[in-house]
Amino acid sequence: MAARNRGYFEAKNIYVLNLVSSPGSGKTSILEKTLQDLKDKIHFSVIEGDQQTMQDANRIDALNVPVIQINTGKGCHLESDMVYSAIKKLEPSENSVLMIENVGNLVCPSMFDLGENKRVVIISITEGEDKPLKYPDMFHSSDICLINKIDLLPHLDFDLEKLKSYALKVNPNLVFFEVSATTGKGMELWYDWMEKEIKNY
Amino acid sequence: MAARNRGYFEAKNIYVLNLVSSPGSGKTSILEKTLQDLKDKIHFSVIEGDQQTMQDANRIDALNVPVIQINTGKGCHLESDMVYSAIKKLEPSENSVLMIENVGNLVCPSMFDLGENKRVVIISITEGEDKPLKYPDMFHSSDICLINKIDLLPHLDFDLEKLKSYALKVNPNLVFFEVSATTGKGMELWYDWMEKEIKNY
Repeated sequence: MAARNRGYFEAKNIYVLNLVSSPGSGKTSILEKTLQDLKDKIHFSVIEGDQQTMQDANRIDALNVPVIQINTGKGCHLESDMVYSAIKKLEPSENSVLMIENVGNLVCPSMFDLGENKRVVIISITEGEDKPLKYPDMFHSSDICLINKIDLLPHLDFDLEKLKSYALKVNPNLVFFEVSATTGKGMELWYDWMEKEIKNY
Repeated sequence: MAARNRGYFEAKNIYVLNLVSSPGSGKTSILEKTLQDLKDKIHFSVIEGDQQTMQDANRIDALNVPVIQINTGKGCHLESDMVYSAIKKLEPSENSVLMIENVGNLVCPSMFDLGENKRVVIISITEGEDKPLKYPDMFHSSDICLINKIDLLPHLDFDLEKLKSYALKVNPNLVFFEVSATTGKGMELWYDWMEKEIKNY
């Protein structure tokens, strides 16, 4: 079903990112900021995954970006058939970008291909440097690592280089962007990467 | 198997807490601080759960507290049979306290009774106020909620009362302690609660 999704996306030239992280790392805030800053240049649509609530979809809807919320109930991750059902309703336009925000969980979503082009793992610096070693599957299966909440760096005992070296141990190909969704710091480089990706798709 | 664990613990008067949270909420730091401050009064043993690494067990071992690390590999939570195997090796002494640190995951561990007396959910204030609504099962199934990293409150746009009101919506019986494992603030009330619990077990 993930392969089928991938074919569907390819046919319509829809570029797809799957955003994964622990709960509270800032997936929705990064998504909001990205949509705000790029939605005049790029057509976006969004699939939101959560166990419960419409809160994230409401935040995206407030930006006038098409969005569908999937509530997984007891489920701990999105699966490709859920994404398939969602895109049949959402009908993302040709030559657009689909952002999928997965359920906040650093374990289970790593095992489920949704048909995305790239997987983006977000980690906030309040979570500690050791997470890539303790939850290696997620960092191993991701292409991009957004290190979020860097505005809090002066208030924490946190070593950015240590985090990166641990992450590179489990995935030497991981590409990092250091960002703050709150202040906007570092977001430009992430946007540049995304625009280049879309252009080369 | 959880019931069997519960019988085993009861027979030896072992009081058991199951610590659950997102990755990076500070479970291990709270555990370290608690052991440091109470280990002269209470006999502790610890079961550590992680996908990979011995890092948490090494941190506990450094405090001279008996500990066993369970690596779940692809697994996203501890199960009662893993705890059973661990206690046969760990052999916690009579009249002691067993602290089980679950895999960092705010979803899956909520569905697995380990035979514990009480479940303690930890949330750090960097994770946002909305987590109890988005991940209701974990807050519904817990008895105690430790709100961690309150030392960062001046640097965040975070509303403690809103977090509590959301958590009480999914579990009106939840009891809160506001703590900082880093500065030690608020830990005394958590210790008082624990000592009273053990006395009344």
